[in-house]
Amino acid sequence: MTASAIVTAAMLAIGDELLSGRTKDKNIGHLAEVLTLSGIDLKEVRIVADDEAAIVAALNALRGAYTYVFTSGGIGPTHDDITADAVSRAFGVECVHDPDAMTLLGDMYKRREMEFTEARRRMARMPIGARHIPNAVSTAPGFIIGNVYVMAGVPQVFQAMLNAVLPQLETGAKVISRSVRSPFGEGDIGGPLGEVQKRHPETSIGSYPKFDGQSFSTELVIRARAEEALDAAEADILAMLATITAARSSGSADA
Amino acid sequence: MTASAIVTAAMLAIGDELLSGRTKDKNIGHLAEVLTLSGIDLKEVRIVADDEAAIVAALNALRGAYTYVFTSGGIGPTHDDITADAVSRAFGVECVHDPDAMTLLGDMYKRREMEFTEARRRMARMPIGARHIPNAVSTAPGFIIGNVYVMAGVPQVFQAMLNAVLPQLETGAKVISRSVRSPFGEGDIGGPLGEVQKRHPETSIGSYPKFDGQSFSTELVIRARAEEALDAAEADILAMLATITAARSSGSADA
Repeated sequence: MTASAIVTAAMLAIGDELLSGRTKDKNIGHLAEVLTLSGIDLKEVRIVADDEAAIVAALNALRGAYTYVFTSGGIGPTHDDITADAVSRAFGVECVHDPDAMTLLGDMYKRREMEFTEARRRMARMPIGARHIPNAVSTAPGFIIGNVYVMAGVPQVFQAMLNAVLPQLETGAKVISRSVRSPFGEGDIGGPLGEVQKRHPETSIGSYPKFDGQSFSTELVIRARAEEALDAAEADILAMLATITAARSSGSADA
Repeated sequence: MTASAIVTAAMLAIGDELLSGRTKDKNIGHLAEVLTLSGIDLKEVRIVADDEAAIVAALNALRGAYTYVFTSGGIGPTHDDITADAVSRAFGVECVHDPDAMTLLGDMYKRREMEFTEARRRMARMPIGARHIPNAVSTAPGFIIGNVYVMAGVPQVFQAMLNAVLPQLETGAKVISRSVRSPFGEGDIGGPLGEVQKRHPETSIGSYPKFDGQSFSTELVIRARAEEALDAAEADILAMLATITAARSSGSADA
């Protein structure tokens, strides 16, 4: 893929425990950081319950809209782990005990002198024809079908699987960013900052308020795909801040 | 609403910073916990960028499907705060400087001897006819239109706004839960646990693996809307665990 192409992604986090508040998700923020650093734009995230219809509907909406979809959760050995079935249904293919995954897991349990129970065999189930995502932490693989990457919900395993697939992904022009600290609050700079944004449409300028307990300041984050665009917007913001500073110190309304 | 009615909700978290990984969301888990305790079922969460088309599409999908929709983010004073415009567009109504909000904010800045800039006036904008959500932390109100509750992204403000609206919400039969600790791993209990789930369709039994560094155990969480259903499923699970324990200690395959 060329350096100027834009590669997009969505995430589908699956699990009742995320929606009941029992478990606080740790995978969304991690995926967001890793994809941003890799030059893949995470555009949308959805969280749904362990509910086949909900998973199928969300997955079909997302896989048609973005380059990649990453899922987390629901690939363990118990009855509430239904992600493999739901993904198979979304693609209209059969969900089977993958022979290679059966061998991998069978050998592992044999080494550990543990019974390869029916429940453990469930972890070998995936849509027919899916490719494995290796699991360096606990062996049971994730899988890839089409543009969908199905990974575990346990953060250590999710991260290991993501590390395993990352080198295979197409990546686009990286979004680079630069922070400028404004000593003024958002309410003071909001107007002129909007003008700066209009003059630099190839950048995206985010404004994040800070409060130190006494006064407000603002962190401005400029994002763009080209260094020159960042440079130009940064210079414009610094000039704007200098104008406000001069106006305040001279006591006049305009510098 | 009767105690047996089911009240549902979705959350729409809005902000580029959540998708770039710069900010780790803290509102989803909080909302999930609070709604669960209140008897409102959080069924779906979406995260989208500060992008009008994306916000409108997600909001229109969610507000048609669930009793309530709660949004977070994008209601500050800067150009990237576009939630009020997007929500107005989703409802097909004009976005205006709400007169009551203008008075509220104007008075506050007057007291604090701060200029009521054009940027600060942006925080008074909302769909025409919307009702305020009070903001005990920093004055600028959120708003309610239809079944959509538009709240701030800063967690302290989001929480204050949620506290303010919670007493007004209809609530349904509370989902109650009980935890049972299994000394066995998911792979050992997965088969019989699935049978227990089938015998208790009015409950939802979640299985959460634990690893203490040496061996696996499992936390089983039974959820239901009636105490008797919890009691029955719990008794069935305890009997199942006793059977496995007896089988293991006698060394026989079946107890």
